[in-house]
Amino acid sequence: MRALRYHGAEDLRVEHDVPEPKCGEDQIKVKPAFVGICGTDLHEYYTPTFIPSKEAPHPVTGESMPVVIGHEFSGTVIKIGSKVTNKNVKVGDKVAVQPTVACFECGACQDGFINCCDKAGFVGLSGGGGGLSDAVCVGGDFVFKLPDHIDLDVGALVEPLAVAWHAVDASQVAEGDDALVLGAGPIGLGVIQCLKARGARYIIVAEVAKERQNFAKHFGATHIFDPRHEDVVAKAKELTGGRGPQIALDCAGVAASIKTACLAVRAQGRVVNVAIWEKEVPFHPNNLVFGEKKYSAVLGYQKKDYQAVIEALGKNTMKPEAMITSRIAIDRVVEDGFMPLINQKEKHVKILVDLSK
Amino acid sequence: MRALRYHGAEDLRVEHDVPEPKCGEDQIKVKPAFVGICGTDLHEYYTPTFIPSKEAPHPVTGESMPVVIGHEFSGTVIKIGSKVTNKNVKVGDKVAVQPTVACFECGACQDGFINCCDKAGFVGLSGGGGGLSDAVCVGGDFVFKLPDHIDLDVGALVEPLAVAWHAVDASQVAEGDDALVLGAGPIGLGVIQCLKARGARYIIVAEVAKERQNFAKHFGATHIFDPRHEDVVAKAKELTGGRGPQIALDCAGVAASIKTACLAVRAQGRVVNVAIWEKEVPFHPNNLVFGEKKYSAVLGYQKKDYQAVIEALGKNTMKPEAMITSRIAIDRVVEDGFMPLINQKEKHVKILVDLSK
Ligand SMILES: NC(=O)c1ccc[n+]([C@@H]2O[C@H](COP(=O)([O-])OP(=O)(O)OC[C@H]3O[C@@H](n4cnc5c(N)ncnc54)[C@H](O)[C@@H]3O)[C@@H](O)[C@H]2O)c1
Ligand SMILES: NC(=O)c1ccc[n+]([C@@H]2O[C@H](COP(=O)([O-])OP(=O)(O)OC[C@H]3O[C@@H](n4cnc5c(N)ncnc54)[C@H](O)[C@@H]3O)[C@@H](O)[C@H]2O)c1
Ligand SMILES: [Zn+2]
Ligand SMILES: [Zn+2]
Ligand SMILES: [Zn+2]
Ligand SMILES: [Zn+2]
Repeated sequence: MRALRYHGAEDLRVEHDVPEPKCGEDQIKVKPAFVGICGTDLHEYYTPTFIPSKEAPHPVTGESMPVVIGHEFSGTVIKIGSKVTNKNVKVGDKVAVQPTVACFECGACQDGFINCCDKAGFVGLSGGGGGLSDAVCVGGDFVFKLPDHIDLDVGALVEPLAVAWHAVDASQVAEGDDALVLGAGPIGLGVIQCLKARGARYIIVAEVAKERQNFAKHFGATHIFDPRHEDVVAKAKELTGGRGPQIALDCAGVAASIKTACLAVRAQGRVVNVAIWEKEVPFHPNNLVFGEKKYSAVLGYQKKDYQAVIEALGKNTMKPEAMITSRIAIDRVVEDGFMPLINQKEKHVKILVDLSK
Repeated sequence: MRALRYHGAEDLRVEHDVPEPKCGEDQIKVKPAFVGICGTDLHEYYTPTFIPSKEAPHPVTGESMPVVIGHEFSGTVIKIGSKVTNKNVKVGDKVAVQPTVACFECGACQDGFINCCDKAGFVGLSGGGGGLSDAVCVGGDFVFKLPDHIDLDVGALVEPLAVAWHAVDASQVAEGDDALVLGAGPIGLGVIQCLKARGARYIIVAEVAKERQNFAKHFGATHIFDPRHEDVVAKAKELTGGRGPQIALDCAGVAASIKTACLAVRAQGRVVNVAIWEKEVPFHPNNLVFGEKKYSAVLGYQKKDYQAVIEALGKNTMKPEAMITSRIAIDRVVEDGFMPLINQKEKHVKILVDLSK
């Protein structure tokens, strides 16, 4: 079959003779339709981190490079293993796939937090196939039927939206709460949509890039500030009767955003960190002490987040179509996908690989 | 009356002609018996921070230096204002006093978190009198009757123990949980006792000073490590089936302790910061991300913490007597109180001023 495989840093190859995966008894075989590209893919392209090297195969999949990439994908069910217990999907269904790889044995897995697995990985990064191929086989419980009126392109947005939903869920937002969102990249824009779907009152956004401020507005931000020119903490407090919002979500992951988030929320407020950080940053715990604030971090998603996003899409309380800023072909992933995401980052939210192209 | 008043940095004076405070209608007048000295007193002695200057009187008390000091105190009720609704105390009762000063108007106060008041202060620091005097008048709801068999010296330990109880409560410890405590100063030792009273299984303590390690052992630590020579994260994981404890409490407040706390707790684990920090420290949020850990901060206490500590003392589930390492006279606070706490810090836990001396 055709697949885009990662052979090493800056070495991606479209190959036509990749063996088609066999559908295990407890697996569902999916023909991918659309695959989103994200910051992780870009990062891996230059510096393999999740993608296992020959010397250190992934402890769950046992695989190492070359691996098929693409972890944010939708597709059509082409086969269902005989022991699959998931009765919500049938052959021919349009589905989104949760690409979680976990050991199901470690403490976190035993406690039900497979997203925190000691050996966590992703289909499309850690082996076990990936979205950028003609077929991929995944665990039967990781396949979610899309509502009839939701197209497969939007289905490829479920993965990043599930990250956002999971984060907003962790914030314990209540209807009418005010929220500050730091950073309006693909994840921050997802967070804005989830906050709106959950009935937040003010969705205050801090973002430096003009184009992304516009996207934020489109998706439901009620107030937008440029942290280079405006005092976001003061503005957020002003808007909320001097107290600050109940919650802040850090989708930027820089020294300025963590500080702003901690200072902006009210007493007993909650900061949820969604970002993955490049390095240590200066941090003053007193910014949490005075006000007894809570800082927590989220990673990935769980099944319930996939279900919640798909339910929201079904009810039209989230309309993420405009996140798709470009559709490209599998043989142009670097040129038309990675390069624009590096050189014209602000212009793009999600670039999708359309496997029918 | 006699009182120890703070006139400025390094200027504490025992005065004998300080006007005796009038007991307001909603106040209770207490004759202090024992007063604990803590790190805050030491810090203020050299650099007034809580103690208001002439230029900036405290927004709630309206007072500025000179102020009476002493915020950790027990005493005997000598008068009850006519409009006091607290029916749990009567004249002659042995009591502990919660020294909270709050505005009762700001958002935090309105939400019931007077410990997070925008204008928070302390009796014994912010004006409104203090424990190191012959009489002090405080709000009727801030006076707590001690159990009959609890002596007034132990009553002066209720304040720091309430800090510890509040922190342990915030950790949501469940019976049988394992906990890591960083730092075994007066606060860490209080935390150890509260954890024991709440039924924690392992109480793993990291502390550098030998004498304090011994105190930790006395108060219930099950395992004690010196972070200079031992890998506390590895040890804590080893003791807990490879997973790490459910909770960690940072009572040290240094770059090493925050890092150790975050890395040691298991997936979904909770770090509670009790320390007040001197400065920013390097911090890697990813230490929380991988494992979706929660970091929260606590400040002071609430009424329920005072009640819980007094109940535990009543039931003998906490026996903090051994925290009292010295008893001194009011005219020797600097020489016999502050200096030993600076020069022989490790030898001491609580030095009490005995007002009968
Ligand atoms: N927790 C998870 O499971 C998970 C999953 C996916 C992505 N992530 C992380 O989420 C973060 C966001 O992802 P993304 O794809 O949207 O990244 P991105 O880089 O596209 O977006 C970050 C945005 O933050 C903005 N920004 C920079 N400095 C800022 C500041 N001081 N204040 C406000 N905004 C500022 C940037 O202009 C940019 O638009 C990344 O760190 C990513 O690694 C986490
Ligand atoms: N949150 C609150 O309301 C509140 C109230 C009172 C005190 N505090 C704070 O709590 C903290 C503890 O108070 P304290 O009076 O016990 O202070 P302390 O200085 O007596 O105790 C700190 C202990 O930490 C130990 N330590 C230093 N480095 C360490 C390391 N790397 N690992 C483990 N231990 C280490 C020290 O040896 C010392 O025994 C202080 O920061 C204080 O300001 C907070
Ligand atoms: Zn991704
Ligand atoms: Zn696992
Ligand atoms: Zn104190
Ligand atoms: Zn207040």
